[in-house]
Amino acid sequence: MNQDTICCISTALGEGAIALIRVSGAESIQIINQIFKNYVKTQNKKLDANKVLVGQIIDNGNIIDEVVVTVFKSPKSYTGEDIIEIACHGSQYIQEKIIQILIEQGCRIANRGEFTLRAFLNGKLDLSQAEAVAELIASDNSKAHQLALKQIRGGISSEMKLLRDRFIKFGALIELELDFSQEDVEFADRNEILKLIVEIKNKVQKLLNSFKYGNVIKNGIPITIVGHPNSGKSTLLNNIIKEDRAIVSNIEGTTRDIIEESINIQGYKLRFIDTAGLRKTQNEIEKIGISKTYHQINKSAFILYLFDKININTSQLNEEIEQIKQKAPKGSIIIIIANKYDLNKNEIILPLNKNIINISAKTGYGIDKLLNYIINTIEGWKDLTDDIIITNQRHFQSLTNILNNTLEVEKGIQSNISGELLAIDIKNCLESLGHITGEITNDNLLDSIFRDFCIGK
Amino acid sequence: MNQDTICCISTALGEGAIALIRVSGAESIQIINQIFKNYVKTQNKKLDANKVLVGQIIDNGNIIDEVVVTVFKSPKSYTGEDIIEIACHGSQYIQEKIIQILIEQGCRIANRGEFTLRAFLNGKLDLSQAEAVAELIASDNSKAHQLALKQIRGGISSEMKLLRDRFIKFGALIELELDFSQEDVEFADRNEILKLIVEIKNKVQKLLNSFKYGNVIKNGIPITIVGHPNSGKSTLLNNIIKEDRAIVSNIEGTTRDIIEESINIQGYKLRFIDTAGLRKTQNEIEKIGISKTYHQINKSAFILYLFDKININTSQLNEEIEQIKQKAPKGSIIIIIANKYDLNKNEIILPLNKNIINISAKTGYGIDKLLNYIINTIEGWKDLTDDIIITNQRHFQSLTNILNNTLEVEKGIQSNISGELLAIDIKNCLESLGHITGEITNDNLLDSIFRDFCIGK
Repeated sequence: MNQDTICCISTALGEGAIALIRVSGAESIQIINQIFKNYVKTQNKKLDANKVLVGQIIDNGNIIDEVVVTVFKSPKSYTGEDIIEIACHGSQYIQEKIIQILIEQGCRIANRGEFTLRAFLNGKLDLSQAEAVAELIASDNSKAHQLALKQIRGGISSEMKLLRDRFIKFGALIELELDFSQEDVEFADRNEILKLIVEIKNKVQKLLNSFKYGNVIKNGIPITIVGHPNSGKSTLLNNIIKEDRAIVSNIEGTTRDIIEESINIQGYKLRFIDTAGLRKTQNEIEKIGISKTYHQINKSAFILYLFDKININTSQLNEEIEQIKQKAPKGSIIIIIANKYDLNKNEIILPLNKNIINISAKTGYGIDKLLNYIINTIEGWKDLTDDIIITNQRHFQSLTNILNNTLEVEKGIQSNISGELLAIDIKNCLESLGHITGEITNDNLLDSIFRDFCIGK
Repeated sequence: MNQDTICCISTALGEGAIALIRVSGAESIQIINQIFKNYVKTQNKKLDANKVLVGQIIDNGNIIDEVVVTVFKSPKSYTGEDIIEIACHGSQYIQEKIIQILIEQGCRIANRGEFTLRAFLNGKLDLSQAEAVAELIASDNSKAHQLALKQIRGGISSEMKLLRDRFIKFGALIELELDFSQEDVEFADRNEILKLIVEIKNKVQKLLNSFKYGNVIKNGIPITIVGHPNSGKSTLLNNIIKEDRAIVSNIEGTTRDIIEESINIQGYKLRFIDTAGLRKTQNEIEKIGISKTYHQINKSAFILYLFDKININTSQLNEEIEQIKQKAPKGSIIIIIANKYDLNKNEIILPLNKNIINISAKTGYGIDKLLNYIINTIEGWKDLTDDIIITNQRHFQSLTNILNNTLEVEKGIQSNISGELLAIDIKNCLESLGHITGEITNDNLLDSIFRDFCIGK
């Protein structure tokens, strides 16, 4: 276990009114006693847990700052160790100076996520909860934020733990059989194992299904707008953005022909991507733009295919829609949008597609209906999932491993393999279950998880 | 007085591990009770002063975040009002959401510096102390930081208050004389007033003198390097920067020909400015560069005139040094530097200048000596000043006003003017003394001071 005492600036980098510096480890209190002089006139006021003390940070007799110090004593602290929080004036100079003094007193600068790593190592959080802390800090919309909070409060871990505990029992019984292998007994009821396997499979499959929803929630829902030049793509994008005003970001693509704008609607982050106009061309540069558009389509959850109602070429439309269908990823939704409804109110019938939404990008007609359709579709994905939703790539990978290992066990029992081989399959299965919650882990895994944390957490 | 309750994010803007939100005002505690649920199992744990509570921020039944809440009760708080500090996870989403909930509960977003303004209005700080809070946060070197801390702890205010209190007594006596003006009595001993005037004048003059030191400490000491092309200016700059490594900043000028690099040496921030090479030219663009160089010289505390020892034109040197002397601001120091000592170790005698520092920008020879000379010169300025040092433009202006008003009073007494006129002069003098500490103030003044604060302080 870590024996050293770590320190870090925990607030956002830069100048602010106040900055927070945290110290965690066995020597926290001893170190703060060396550099902090509180203002209470009576003899040394004690550093009590959850007490707030006002005073000065002193360095070689010089006052460095007037600060507020809060003490959280082990084990009732974030890391489970003694923690000191120093709220200082937020000048960069003071922040750096206090860190420097702490280092002189024997602290070490914390690595990314090291406070949370220690919380994990000290049993305050399991691994998926620790990961959720980073996701909570990174979340930029209400739904992602709610998912991260739920995960911090248990979520996936408790379900997986429950299944694993039951599975461990069977594992133990199989091992027991091996000890008595001469006698050809069966302690572990194969039918009971199969029942549990089915339960795990169902649970894991539901969690895997939820990733589609969870992942778009976390990263925003990619919605690509495609169509001919002048079909009204940019007008549509501008109208959506303008109407909702809550612009989250405006990312210009690597090339000028792909522009992304994000908005939050009903707690979901919708990422609208405007693309180069589709058309047959001999121009090499335009061809690159169009190939980029198809590439973008391949990364979308929704594809809005926009066409101009006053300038229709039905066979071309059908051909392009067919092409988009081929490029669109599995499970994505293509929405056909007939623009310029203000100029042409006729029904358009396309043989291949039943649903066409009429809009006027210019007047805003139909845009509400379009957005509602998108939101309802996303809500529909949620309904397909359980209460627990996976947002994390690592969990998705671990769950896929669990599913595969479970299938191995199932196949083994059905083909009546020997206890030795079954024991190995069960062990693999238990291991992949343990990876999610961090009951089984290794340094590489921990490194790769915590290096994505922000500094000071 | 302000009756509303204000809130603000007090840590630096952006994503961090932790952010701090502050609420100040009469309704702080009532508001936090509406949105905060603490984890203690017993009945509502009370929001005691200086107590730290862990719990959740709740919005319409939804958990928004797990937070740490600290309570500072009036009058023992920064503003003198009830203050609640909420330490939340540092995602931008959570920060904004909590601010939004606070606003829904009746808080108002604090203006820049409004927490400190309230501290001033509630008598927790005087005006010059409040200003020092902003300077403390902005300070980027050890000396500026020490000056700001000293000012927060009283500094100039206490001196000025003392002088003003004594002066008020005379003002009152003069007023009394006016009441008895028929009787031609003199309650206020004119000699005593003159004695006090002399004392004030000396004090104020010393403080005014300290501004030269204080101002360069606060903003960094501007040191311009001038000389011919290839005299080694950039090599010198690079060598200084490299040797000390503690690079503070690297500001490229509006044109490519002025480059600034700052380093901290012995707590002082030295701002080295590299300029276009000086030479006679017909090229219009080069002429502009050279005129910029002369403009830069005019803003310098030190001018380093560099020449190449293996390529000397004495008459030209003397001519240029003369020109620099004309452009250099009063009180600035010109240092003549003979470069390329590694190639030519001969003594150089220039008739107009006694001191020449030999260096080799390339090998680093003599650079220590140069830097020591600069630091010692600055320390010398400090020795000319009193313990209290002025760093603030407004204080400099106020002190100049005090000096002028004091001279008026002195002149008036010496020429034996009437009590009525003397009363007016004394009143002016008291007013300018009161401006420094904020005993006399107005909304415009307060606005202009606090709008320079960072948000959340």
